[in-house]
Amino acid sequence: MAAKSNGQVSKVLDGPINPMVTPLLTDLYQFTMAYAYWKAGKHNERAVFDLYFRKNPFGGEYTVFAGLEECIKFIANFKLAEDEIDFVRESLSSSCEDGFFDYLRGVDCSDVEVYAVQEGSVVFPKVPLLRVEGPIAVVQLLETPFLNLINYASLVATNAARHRFVAGESKMLLEFGLRRAQGPDGGIGASRYCYMGGFHATSNVAAGKLFGIPLRGTHSHAFVSSFMSPDEIIDKSLHSSDKRSTCEDFVSLAQTWLNKIQWSNSLNGTFGETNQSELAAFTSYALAFPDNFLALVDTYDVMRSGIPNFCAVALALNDLGYKAAGIRLDSGDLAYLSSEARKIFCIIEKEFGVPGFGKMVITASNDLNEETLDALNKQGHEVDAFGIGTYVVTCYAQAALGCVFKLVEINNQPRIKLSEDVTKVSIPCKKRSYRLYGKEGYPLVDIMTGENEPPPKVGERILCRHPFNESKRAYVVPQRVEELLKCFWQGPGGVREDLPPLNDIRERCISQLAKMRPDHMRRLNPTPYKVSVSAKLYDFIHFLWLNEAPVGELQ
Amino acid sequence: MAAKSNGQVSKVLDGPINPMVTPLLTDLYQFTMAYAYWKAGKHNERAVFDLYFRKNPFGGEYTVFAGLEECIKFIANFKLAEDEIDFVRESLSSSCEDGFFDYLRGVDCSDVEVYAVQEGSVVFPKVPLLRVEGPIAVVQLLETPFLNLINYASLVATNAARHRFVAGESKMLLEFGLRRAQGPDGGIGASRYCYMGGFHATSNVAAGKLFGIPLRGTHSHAFVSSFMSPDEIIDKSLHSSDKRSTCEDFVSLAQTWLNKIQWSNSLNGTFGETNQSELAAFTSYALAFPDNFLALVDTYDVMRSGIPNFCAVALALNDLGYKAAGIRLDSGDLAYLSSEARKIFCIIEKEFGVPGFGKMVITASNDLNEETLDALNKQGHEVDAFGIGTYVVTCYAQAALGCVFKLVEINNQPRIKLSEDVTKVSIPCKKRSYRLYGKEGYPLVDIMTGENEPPPKVGERILCRHPFNESKRAYVVPQRVEELLKCFWQGPGGVREDLPPLNDIRERCISQLAKMRPDHMRRLNPTPYKVSVSAKLYDFIHFLWLNEAPVGELQ
Repeated sequence: MAAKSNGQVSKVLDGPINPMVTPLLTDLYQFTMAYAYWKAGKHNERAVFDLYFRKNPFGGEYTVFAGLEECIKFIANFKLAEDEIDFVRESLSSSCEDGFFDYLRGVDCSDVEVYAVQEGSVVFPKVPLLRVEGPIAVVQLLETPFLNLINYASLVATNAARHRFVAGESKMLLEFGLRRAQGPDGGIGASRYCYMGGFHATSNVAAGKLFGIPLRGTHSHAFVSSFMSPDEIIDKSLHSSDKRSTCEDFVSLAQTWLNKIQWSNSLNGTFGETNQSELAAFTSYALAFPDNFLALVDTYDVMRSGIPNFCAVALALNDLGYKAAGIRLDSGDLAYLSSEARKIFCIIEKEFGVPGFGKMVITASNDLNEETLDALNKQGHEVDAFGIGTYVVTCYAQAALGCVFKLVEINNQPRIKLSEDVTKVSIPCKKRSYRLYGKEGYPLVDIMTGENEPPPKVGERILCRHPFNESKRAYVVPQRVEELLKCFWQGPGGVREDLPPLNDIRERCISQLAKMRPDHMRRLNPTPYKVSVSAKLYDFIHFLWLNEAPVGELQ
Repeated sequence: MAAKSNGQVSKVLDGPINPMVTPLLTDLYQFTMAYAYWKAGKHNERAVFDLYFRKNPFGGEYTVFAGLEECIKFIANFKLAEDEIDFVRESLSSSCEDGFFDYLRGVDCSDVEVYAVQEGSVVFPKVPLLRVEGPIAVVQLLETPFLNLINYASLVATNAARHRFVAGESKMLLEFGLRRAQGPDGGIGASRYCYMGGFHATSNVAAGKLFGIPLRGTHSHAFVSSFMSPDEIIDKSLHSSDKRSTCEDFVSLAQTWLNKIQWSNSLNGTFGETNQSELAAFTSYALAFPDNFLALVDTYDVMRSGIPNFCAVALALNDLGYKAAGIRLDSGDLAYLSSEARKIFCIIEKEFGVPGFGKMVITASNDLNEETLDALNKQGHEVDAFGIGTYVVTCYAQAALGCVFKLVEINNQPRIKLSEDVTKVSIPCKKRSYRLYGKEGYPLVDIMTGENEPPPKVGERILCRHPFNESKRAYVVPQRVEELLKCFWQGPGGVREDLPPLNDIRERCISQLAKMRPDHMRRLNPTPYKVSVSAKLYDFIHFLWLNEAPVGELQ
């Protein structure tokens, strides 16, 4: 155990959350290549790979980086089990030599180094999220699991942050997506990374247990329709909140309140007959959870049945010293219904002298996404909390982030990947990267440099060049310089950064997003954040490019 | 252990593939409702829920049902562990009574019945995929995990089937999506259900091990660019295929062939200098896998470098009695490049007398989806195998299927869920459903009936009614009647259907798809398949609807 730079002693890490994340969770070609490297005696050549994406998702200009902790836990425990080696042997050609499988038996990540941006950071295209260095055959085996663990995590954290941005900071965001997620840990990962991106709670109990995320949930339409009428409620008694008295017939108390509401002057005959199965369900739910009564009011008819039934039960609870929590709307015109519900709550507060009744929490759900949230804001609404499912967890607007993993150096030789499409050309060399901040405290530009170049200095002018467009360049005098890649792994005993708790990562994410210049963040036509390379790196990229690209012949 | 109707003895089932699928993988409200049911003494009331979807995905008119095996394995092992019960206790209100947690401790699925459509079947909106019956509190706990396990599985199996339909039956389809999938078992589930939907192989090694799916994969661009030149290859010897002779310098042999190609008359100076790092990589890969040489040819330039380098190495292998497997194209104009590559292969077959060289397998990848496959077909191409990743596994065109789980009966009382939106009204009653086939062998219509109605009979005319549109109805004289819901669970010792092996499910899926009337299957403007109810059920739905819906008042 080594002392760590930040004072902490590095300790043995658990494996990834999902036990299915094993060294076999990779593409077959990583093993065929490992064999070919081994056969050529190249497997221990030291290689550097960058993991990065080329384009921000959802038509935006920022991305939240997530998934790092799982990657580090994965490599800390990377070891092929005997049955896994047997399976690889079966899957490769029968002509593969035994020595390779002996080699695989000894493979671990003790000789691998991972430098990464801190999880929860705001990140941009082309700048490495991870720089992974080690024996080429081993690092290649990590490619697919790293991409798998980072692509979706970053995508869904970004999606959550975008939804939070549109909903507004004062609103509570609840992730309700488990049932529509892409598989079990599509659901569990979604809950974790939505929380990281700024959501406040989830309905997913497993995620609550695994990650300590606050849980929310009350009842469904089926609960309401499972009741027939209040007659079927057998135990009708309810203690008062202070336990000093007992109401022997809470069902009648609620019924009495319903009558009062129906005959109230201020409500002026708004309400007629309500659905009795709904009233029975609400009363039953209040008897079970008198201190946390929140009712789904749209099973039959929100304004004619759900709202008066809810108010009756809430007022009955109020008589016994309990405060009802609120309602949930799951269909219809949420702007209209929330505003109407608010009006009724305020009228009741006045008419019956129940302080705070007007401030009842209104939760809305039903296929919400960035567009519908934006439309609700434009119409005006009285919703306090949004339950968002399908659109946030499946990243419906763009279901994949395209992170890639590219070789940038081998045996100290820089490598470049060319492409007809200039956006797909990789930036060669083992690099460092920095975020430069301006006078107003906003990040101005990210800059990549060769590993051995001197770092940008506060107050010193530096030329930042677009990596591929020679005419795009700018001088910057940074007021603050932040090195982006930090060491998260250099073997099991190595000095490395902490893996902070989820709440700290969430705080980092929220505070970094808040510090971005607003024009990068807007939903429509945001300004791209600048990503650059040093003048020296620029020259080297273009020297290497010309060197590698074949000269065409026009015929 | 009970004897089964199909002669098999039911046996203890393993749990779900992903150990994260536990009773806590559910929404909190399932537990709050369970408590409220328990508190009201309603928890053991017998309830029937239907699991179904409302709309086929991807603008199509069919869906492939998948995920059933995982559901059955889940309920066969459903039991809350002590730490899970403790966590539920912490998550609910502190006022919840201890007796509830004692109750939870005893909960299992021995009193639950699951009737389901067979996995791999072609299915349609509104018709139950599962009918789940049991004590209401227990069945509600199953809602979220069942939806989670079925929604994505069915979506991705359908997506795979659609891709196969466009690619054409003669093409090989490879699933390469692990790196872009929504989390680890987004990847593992995708591999399983793409195979079920008609794909032929996957790159995902873990899925290969878990499910026996054939594996495919060769090498990446990084492998190519990790080499500098053929000089670095140390062990240059290669045995002939029959082991009778050894070529001591395979590198020179490949180089010699490259010169021959460059100076060939028929190729007429097509090729100039090729990239030496690529030639080194191909030669190395061939030395590692002489009997399965498949090269990625687009790292530098397909026509100027990749193809001639590949042909040189393939011809060198041919000298030693090996047949090269083919090439992969991962960028550029796949229609053009595959056709040009085919031409070269055919010329080489002739010029150098290498039988079969022209039939070399050409694999294409690079962001393929239904549209690009369709466009390739229209242009004409020479691709034999498609590697499809992101678009198939993340279901990019539509990232979620909206299966729902609705209460249709409690204590033998039919229940209906109303909605302003008629497509969201549920079909009440514990039901049976049948597929009726016409003279030409095609399925004509699915019909739902009440549980105790006599089943439709072959040769007897039956009226099939649209469930909600009174003017849509048709008489059908079925030539074959297939009951759709079969018993897959009635407690651990109960008689039930087998859970067939993956390959059988895949066969069912492929053969059912082949038997559909072609107009339901086409990609653009397909004809909707008819889904209906019996006359008796129609009348009952509308009786119940009128009974439950409040009468409006216009003011």
